[in-house]
Amino acid sequence: MAHLAHDPNKQPDNLRTMQLASVLPMTASVVDGSLYIAGVNASMLASEYGTALYVYDEEHIRTQLSSYIKELRSRLGNADVAYAGKAFTCKAMARLVAEEGGWLDVSSGGELAIALAAGFPAQHVVVHGNNKTVRELTEAIKAGVGRIVVDCHEELERTDAIAAKIGVSQPVLLRVKPGVVADTHEFIRTGAEDSKFGFGLADGSATAAVKQAMKLSNVQLKGLHVHIGSQIFALDSFVETIFVMTAYLAELRDNLGFMAEDLDLGGGLGIAYLAADAPTPIVAFAQTISDAIIKSCEQNSLTVPRIIVEPGRSIVANAGVTLYTIGAIKELRDIRTYVAIDGGMTDNIRTALYDASYESVIANRANEPRDTIVTLAGKHCESGDVVAIDASLQRPQVGDIVCMFATGAYCQSMANNYNRQVRPGVVFVRDGKVREVIRRESYEDLLATDVG
Amino acid sequence: MAHLAHDPNKQPDNLRTMQLASVLPMTASVVDGSLYIAGVNASMLASEYGTALYVYDEEHIRTQLSSYIKELRSRLGNADVAYAGKAFTCKAMARLVAEEGGWLDVSSGGELAIALAAGFPAQHVVVHGNNKTVRELTEAIKAGVGRIVVDCHEELERTDAIAAKIGVSQPVLLRVKPGVVADTHEFIRTGAEDSKFGFGLADGSATAAVKQAMKLSNVQLKGLHVHIGSQIFALDSFVETIFVMTAYLAELRDNLGFMAEDLDLGGGLGIAYLAADAPTPIVAFAQTISDAIIKSCEQNSLTVPRIIVEPGRSIVANAGVTLYTIGAIKELRDIRTYVAIDGGMTDNIRTALYDASYESVIANRANEPRDTIVTLAGKHCESGDVVAIDASLQRPQVGDIVCMFATGAYCQSMANNYNRQVRPGVVFVRDGKVREVIRRESYEDLLATDVG
Repeated sequence: MAHLAHDPNKQPDNLRTMQLASVLPMTASVVDGSLYIAGVNASMLASEYGTALYVYDEEHIRTQLSSYIKELRSRLGNADVAYAGKAFTCKAMARLVAEEGGWLDVSSGGELAIALAAGFPAQHVVVHGNNKTVRELTEAIKAGVGRIVVDCHEELERTDAIAAKIGVSQPVLLRVKPGVVADTHEFIRTGAEDSKFGFGLADGSATAAVKQAMKLSNVQLKGLHVHIGSQIFALDSFVETIFVMTAYLAELRDNLGFMAEDLDLGGGLGIAYLAADAPTPIVAFAQTISDAIIKSCEQNSLTVPRIIVEPGRSIVANAGVTLYTIGAIKELRDIRTYVAIDGGMTDNIRTALYDASYESVIANRANEPRDTIVTLAGKHCESGDVVAIDASLQRPQVGDIVCMFATGAYCQSMANNYNRQVRPGVVFVRDGKVREVIRRESYEDLLATDVG
Repeated sequence: MAHLAHDPNKQPDNLRTMQLASVLPMTASVVDGSLYIAGVNASMLASEYGTALYVYDEEHIRTQLSSYIKELRSRLGNADVAYAGKAFTCKAMARLVAEEGGWLDVSSGGELAIALAAGFPAQHVVVHGNNKTVRELTEAIKAGVGRIVVDCHEELERTDAIAAKIGVSQPVLLRVKPGVVADTHEFIRTGAEDSKFGFGLADGSATAAVKQAMKLSNVQLKGLHVHIGSQIFALDSFVETIFVMTAYLAELRDNLGFMAEDLDLGGGLGIAYLAADAPTPIVAFAQTISDAIIKSCEQNSLTVPRIIVEPGRSIVANAGVTLYTIGAIKELRDIRTYVAIDGGMTDNIRTALYDASYESVIANRANEPRDTIVTLAGKHCESGDVVAIDASLQRPQVGDIVCMFATGAYCQSMANNYNRQVRPGVVFVRDGKVREVIRRESYEDLLATDVG
């Protein structure tokens, strides 16, 4: 796909002059007014693969994941990074994670099936979910997954029974609610006592679960898991969680003689959706949580357990962009300008669901000033189908290619076929080369399960 | 599938004693404590087809659609009912609509492809969308669709050009914003001036479009279309819209000599999601809008045009239910009881998106009192993944089958694969018989487009 690459002799303009640095894929640049990602012309990708199209900067993903691993191991020694597949997954992504030495966090039988189809090593898979079905547990235990994060008493017994039947001892973690209220959208705040996830600390159900797990023959209790939420900017709630959890691990050691090998801190580091957002860099995150762990373990005379973190959004969100073609423009005087794109809530439901916001550029005129305020509306039959409200954009024209940034997490993974819209394809770009990793759906795909 | 049917000699208890009448499929009943739909035991459907599962009462759908047709034609003579496929569609549904004599409203190339695959007559298809692609317009015109509802000036020219190329004259309607603000959720309110849909009346763009359409050789302007929103309870805004539109049609006749054959009033009639909801019955809707049309046409000395309405939700929402299996229960003292079901925001995103609410029963103990207040939480990795908050239910037990009512519209049609959850199957039940119309997805389906 070399014809999509740019001329290596040209000097790229710098998109950073547009003050979008925080939201861009790391290899984004502008050459002769056109947006390039990893040296690949975005508009040419649009005409080659059609729109809407998800494009991922592979180097960006690899850099984020390997930074997490390096920054944590250099400070803590024993640490692992399990990429949260719910943010975005496919076979190519699972292979990339394996190549970088990451573990993989899966949330369903479907995510596990994709990992296994990609040849991802099962012993590096962490299985999540507040209601894993018997089938899902069976598949996971048979595959030999590294950890099952058990969410409730019934599941603990169910896991033990299934493992006994298969004839193995399954390594597990227990998911604990630390009672920490993270400063983020309530939909993605998960560590408070009023949560469907995990065992409460305050009500004694976590301790009851530890006791129960220690008695069971076919589960090996390796430690605890905690996840306070997503898209978190301030590190205070992570630090608070660490102090709560290490004190609790000391209590379990003192009262029950239980010594945790693992402490899984979940994910949740925020990213920049808008140019003005200033999320915490990975290195600062690693520094702060490592300091907190070392200090809190010292205070409690605990050996520092293996730390696992589960970032998703902070690995893929800014690596991914969505390309759209403008099909219609409506300038409603004194109201707003609607720019209709050939996608919408089917490929990005985050705006309707969480009031998300995004930065965009016209890929084919990316060097022009973003001096127009528009509402980017989808093509679906609903007024709520907008993806960016009152967003800055170059003066739009029908046929222009819009590149929307920071759409790499929870967009493709939540994509749907509302209005029987076919879901976009996904391409990875790296070093001027393109590879399609998920093909666009066809009408035949829409009819694949239609047996009536 | 006769073994799923109930014993015809047993007398059903009446679910209406539970005061749920308004939300139920019309054939719902309780026999020996078990919920039946169309004489089919819901729990047996769950064990036969697995959960989550969408179940539709076919008689209910047919009755709603045929009521619309009968009640409008008996009052207006010339009227058609175009079922809004965006609410729920598949080949079986398109065939059912054709059998009942309905037209079909499609919102994308995908919905048209499904209709054509079902053998639905193209001349009874109305094509919608605020940003139809060139491909979609071409497919629709080639198929010979009955009406294209044109949304903007560019699309009008595009339609004319494509029709010219194909060598036909395409019947079209123009979508007009009447400036009426319907009393419903802002996401599904579509008739105000600040809308991405259609031509404004107030700013003169509708009149400009009529003039433009009258000049073009390959479009036949048949009339106007208007859609003020969805899930509307009060009929006042429909009546207001009718008076605005007939006055405008008289103005077009007087000033431009344009005589509309069709007036398409869109959809929008509300339904009961909760037992206490009291939506307008179809017969009252037909009476009120027919009276308004006849009166307003008289006032303006207009021949009553053919009236088209486009109901979706009010045809399928109460016909459909979702069956789930309870996998885990967490009673958080003084907080709430979480009941985890084996589905959630993947099969029903309406709660997260619109704060929707639903009524449910335990299908296998439907005669017991609903004396417990629970939050029905999905199995997905997000706190926002709940489908009913603080809902009445029989005292739940792990393994129970939950039947959630009024999930027939905008649930399956918006279903997604978040957490790579496979999407549920759909069965139609009628007269004690079951037919699967959409099969449950498999892990292989999840990998069908994964080419990386």
